[in-house]
This record gives sequence, structure tokens and C-alpha cells, in this order.
Amino acid sequence: SRSLSLAVIPGDGIGQEVVTEGLKVLSAALPQDVKLETKEYDFGAKRYHATGQTLTDDDLAELKVHDAILLGAIGDPSVPSGVLERGFLLKLRFAFDHHVNLRPSKLFPGVGTPLAGSPAIDFVVVREGTEGPYTGNGGTIRTGTPQEVATEVSLNTAYGIERVVRDAYARAQARPRKKLTLVHKNNVLVHAGRLWTRIFEAVGAEYPDVTTDYLHVDAATIFLVTQPERFDVIVTDNLFGDIITDLAAAVSGGIGVAASGNINPGRAFPSMFEPVHGSAPDIAGQSKADPTATVLSVALLLRHLGYDTEADRIDAAVQTDLAERSGRPARSTVEIGDALAARVAG
Amino acid sequence: SRSLSLAVIPGDGIGQEVVTEGLKVLSAALPQDVKLETKEYDFGAKRYHATGQTLTDDDLAELKVHDAILLGAIGDPSVPSGVLERGFLLKLRFAFDHHVNLRPSKLFPGVGTPLAGSPAIDFVVVREGTEGPYTGNGGTIRTGTPQEVATEVSLNTAYGIERVVRDAYARAQARPRKKLTLVHKNNVLVHAGRLWTRIFEAVGAEYPDVTTDYLHVDAATIFLVTQPERFDVIVTDNLFGDIITDLAAAVSGGIGVAASGNINPGRAFPSMFEPVHGSAPDIAGQSKADPTATVLSVALLLRHLGYDTEADRIDAAVQTDLAERSGRPARSTVEIGDALAARVAG
Ligand SMILES: CC(C)[C@H](C(=O)O)[C@@H](O)C(=O)O
Ligand SMILES: CC(C)[C@H](C(=O)O)[C@@H](O)C(=O)O
Repeated sequence: SRSLSLAVIPGDGIGQEVVTEGLKVLSAALPQDVKLETKEYDFGAKRYHATGQTLTDDDLAELKVHDAILLGAIGDPSVPSGVLERGFLLKLRFAFDHHVNLRPSKLFPGVGTPLAGSPAIDFVVVREGTEGPYTGNGGTIRTGTPQEVATEVSLNTAYGIERVVRDAYARAQARPRKKLTLVHKNNVLVHAGRLWTRIFEAVGAEYPDVTTDYLHVDAATIFLVTQPERFDVIVTDNLFGDIITDLAAAVSGGIGVAASGNINPGRAFPSMFEPVHGSAPDIAGQSKADPTATVLSVALLLRHLGYDTEADRIDAAVQTDLAERSGRPARSTVEIGDALAARVAG
Repeated sequence: SRSLSLAVIPGDGIGQEVVTEGLKVLSAALPQDVKLETKEYDFGAKRYHATGQTLTDDDLAELKVHDAILLGAIGDPSVPSGVLERGFLLKLRFAFDHHVNLRPSKLFPGVGTPLAGSPAIDFVVVREGTEGPYTGNGGTIRTGTPQEVATEVSLNTAYGIERVVRDAYARAQARPRKKLTLVHKNNVLVHAGRLWTRIFEAVGAEYPDVTTDYLHVDAATIFLVTQPERFDVIVTDNLFGDIITDLAAAVSGGIGVAASGNINPGRAFPSMFEPVHGSAPDIAGQSKADPTATVLSVALLLRHLGYDTEADRIDAAVQTDLAERSGRPARSTVEIGDALAARVAG
């Protein structure tokens, strides 16, 4: 019999509530013969306040044995900005070499969007996750004085770019439209821009059936609100990906339905799946949070591990549930989770 | 009698057409006793092809004597991406120390927006123009090989940040809502982020009547489409400003009405005013381009030089013209320019 060993990190705020529903739907979706083993970890603000720790080498060693990680949300106003982001979220991405940050954007029928006319939105962003301006490189001199100079260094390697570009081409090739757009700012950031462009074109030669396209990041934000239907797969750098995936989530139904995977495609390390939204401390503990983004992240997790049919069932359940929401009274976190689990099981 | 000496750079594509209308409206707006002297310069793709030059030291010396510069648009598909951007546009910004890049976003009545419900949009972005990742710093090793490493270095100085932050506070204080939002990514880009945050807070102590706010750039893109009415003045770094001002233009009526100033507030060098849109070679020479963004840039130019009443008259003319457009047949570039000039004169 098969098994799935999952590290579960509820985290802060609404994290526990949405993760509970995510696991409920996961259990409902998994084939009978798969034994699900979960282990919960207490990372987040509470542990930081109690111990000063965010993520230790021992923690990483423990996490490493699992098949995947499901995260709720990390972050609390009681912790200085950046501490948990860098000490936990980014540390984990770098330690487990999560170089593919996968963020699908799909405007499901019946879901609200700030855009007029509800355009057809169905694309996925493949964001590089281990390079660019996210490496912490840089520093300051004359710190705290009127003569201070601060640098941020964006690091870009042919190795790092090629593997994520290759992943993006493969994903584009597997989709009906087979279109891949590189988003960068190669007219200004020439050193990194030339490298991204060179590799994008070189790898493209191996995927002749994939249509390619290039957009500067500033122009991409315009198209994301005026013509989002033009996008199929986008590949981009760590920082540009951070920015455009939040915008993409906003136009395609909001962060309540935005899922995300921090993926190590070769499975050398467990990949981590999480909703794009934060810990929302203002509504924590009130069963008001929408667990849909977490449930969609569970579908990404299953697909990563090869459970495609099960992932499809979850996606379909979410789609039906969302389509039936409009005009009905709001449901609690648990009610939404129950409804999705019932659909997936049935 | 007073005089206004203007360097006019029509540039490429639709540049000539929109600049002609801009100048028409400028002449109509200027007080009788002001003598307008214009000198045209041929920078752009044609000159680059003929001479290989984009902007020489002699050019800069000539441009320097003017009170201000009006630019149409620079860029043509026949020139490799980046050459004119860096060789002309960025070179001029750096040479003339245009550290305040001013980009107002106002959704005028009757103007279309991709956002549902036509929210009330009226804010201005103060983008730093001479630092950040725009300095060209960085480089490559093992160039062209599978072992290539490329860096981009973002340079940030207390000096450079303080002057633009101070400018933004002054602009916020002069507006009814008196609200200033810093946009950065200080939870990840900590070196630059701490410096921006420290200076933003320190200068803020001198402006106790200005309400302040901080947003990460990714979250800012969400609010720009879900709650654009929350913004009054935004101050941000060069790259974040590039990205969010294109998005801001898209939600507030499109680049057809987006104006921009590259400003040296102390007037040590002439400031440059230009529409945010590009040279649009596909519609060049057909009198199809909307000169409104250029006309609004002329209003920014006049305000910069102290002609506030005249700038207000142009803004009012544009507002009325835009309000009367809907449902009417499209007009040519010249017709729109004529209509605006007539309103401003009358
Ligand atoms: C919390 C932060 C470090 C993170 C990022 O910038 O990557 C977040 O914005 C995201 O997109 O996952
Ligand atoms: C053309 C390019 C160099 C420029 C920039 O990146 O600043 C443009 O996008 C702008 O916003 O003025």
C-alpha cells in the first residue's frame, strides 16, 4: 500500500483554520489505499516569541523526510516585519531549493473580479524562487548616517534561469494554447536581462511548438488588467514574479482563491504548498476565512506528487462550489471545507 | 517681458504629431507677455541610424540652456531594445539629475477604465529617478556560457532618498487629503528597505499633518485595482515606480491620458515632460494618436515653471473635453488639439 507523509504547518492567524479544511479535502480526495500520515509543526509567531527561533537546521532535517509540506500562513503584527518572512518563508525556499514558484490564475465562473466585463482568465506564473534580488545580497555603509549607501544585489545564474525556464516551457507545452511569455525588464536591467533573454531563446529552440512572447514587467501589469486573456504561461524572475502574481491574484478572484506551490521539481527536497493570502489576524478564530485557496493548494500538492486524477477532482469541486456561491449567504470556513470534501468524496 | 525657452524633442513614431498639439495648447495657455521660444532637436531612431549617436555631451550642453524640455516619444522597432532607452532617456534623466519622476493618475469623468464600477481615482506617484536598480551597476562573468552569472546592483543613498521623500511630503501636504504612502519591499530588500523606511519616518516628523502609510509593492498592485481611491501621494523607488505607474495609468484611463515629468525640483537643470505612452509606430502619421497625455504633460511643465493658473486652465479644458467624448465619433490628433487649444484660449 502507498503512503503520503505530509508536514503540516498551520502557522499564524487563520492558518490553522484553513489548513484543517485543506486536510479534510485532501483525505476525501486520496485513494483508499494511500495511507496519509501528517505531522504538525509549530512554526510561526508563537514559537518565535517563545524561543526566538524561526527555522533551525534541526527543523529542516525533520521537514526533509516528508513527501510535501502544507502551510497555512506565517506572519503576525507582533513580530517585526521581515523576521518571519526571511527567517522562515525565504529560508525554507532556499534550503529546499524551491526554484519553481507556481502560481495559477484562473477566474472561475461566478467569482468576482475588479475588472469590468469579467474577462476569460486562465494562466499560470512560473516564478523563479531562489535567485534574483531575493538572496539577501547587498549591504550598507555609513549605516544610520546622512551618508548611508545601501545596495541590493540581484544574483542571476545561467544554471538557475535555465532550470526554471525549462520547467515553464514544459508546462506551456502541456497546455492547449502552448504559449509562454517571458516577463523581465531587459531594456534597463541589461546584465540579468540579456542572460534571461538568451536562455529563454535557446531553450525555446527545443520547444518549437510553444509560441513565445516577451513583455517588460511594467507593460505586463497593463496587460494583466486590460487583456489578461492574452496570457497562458508566464516565466519571470523572483521579484517580478512576486509583484505580478499578487496583481494576477487580485484580478482573478482575489487572494481568497489564489494557490501557490514552492516546488523542487526533481523532488530532491519536499515541496511546499500554501495559499497566497496571509495570516489575516483580524479575522482569525472566527471561522470567517475562505479555505478555498488552501484547498486549491492541496490540488497543486497532489498534482506535484503524481495524483493528477485526485487533483482534478478537487479543482472541479472548487469550480462547482464557487459557481453556486453567488447570491447565497456566506458560509463559515468549516462549512466551505465540508461542502468541498463532500463533493470530492461523492 | 518674460520668456519661456523650450527644447522640443518630437522623437519617433507619433511623437511629432502629439508634440505639435502640445505646443498648440501651450501657446494658447501662455500669458500674452510671455515670449515662447522653442528649439527642435532630432533625437531618436532616425538620428541613431544616421550617426550612431543617441545623446552626446554637446547635445546635453545645448539642452541645458532651456527652461524645460518637451518630449514626444522615443523608440522604434528598428533599433535594438534598450539602446535608445538607456542611451537617450535614462542618460538624460541621470545627466540632468531628474530625481523626481512625477506621474499623476486621475480618472476623469467619462473616461473608460478596465476596473468595474469606475472608482474615484486621484493620486500622484513620486518615483525616484536617479538611483535604485536603474544605475546600470552590475555585470556578468563567464558571459555566454552555461556558467554565466549576472548581477544587477540597486544603489540607494540617504541623500538621494531624502530629497525625493521630502518632495513627496511637500506634495502630500499641499493636497486636501494629505496622505503619503511609501511603497517598497522592505521585508525582503532589507538593506535598501531599512534606509527608505528610516528616512520616510524621519522626514515625516517634520510633516505632522501628513498621514503616512506603508505598503509592500506586491500588495500595492492589489490595492491599485481593488481600492485605488485609497491612494493620495505615493513615494517609491525607481523600479517599483516604473511598474506601479504603468499599472496606475492602465486603471485610470490608459496611457492615452497619462502624463509624466522628469523633474529637477531645484531647477539646476531643465526638467523634461513627456506622455507615458511610447512612439506607437503602428499608428504613426495617421493623425490617430490622442495628444491628451502630451497636453497634460504640458500642464505639468507649466506648473513646474510657476504658471499654475495656466496649468489649471489646461487641466480643466482636458477634463471638459474628456467628459464630452463619450458617444461621439473619434477625432483626429489635430482636432483634439484644436479643441483643447480653443477651450484654453477661450
Ligand atoms: C512574504 C514574502 C517574503 C513573500 C515573497 O515576497 O515572496 C510573499 O510576498 C510571496 O509572494 O510569497
Ligand atoms: C523606457 C524605459 C527606460 C522607461 C523606464 O523604465 O523608466 C519607461 O518604462 C518609463 O517608465 O519611463
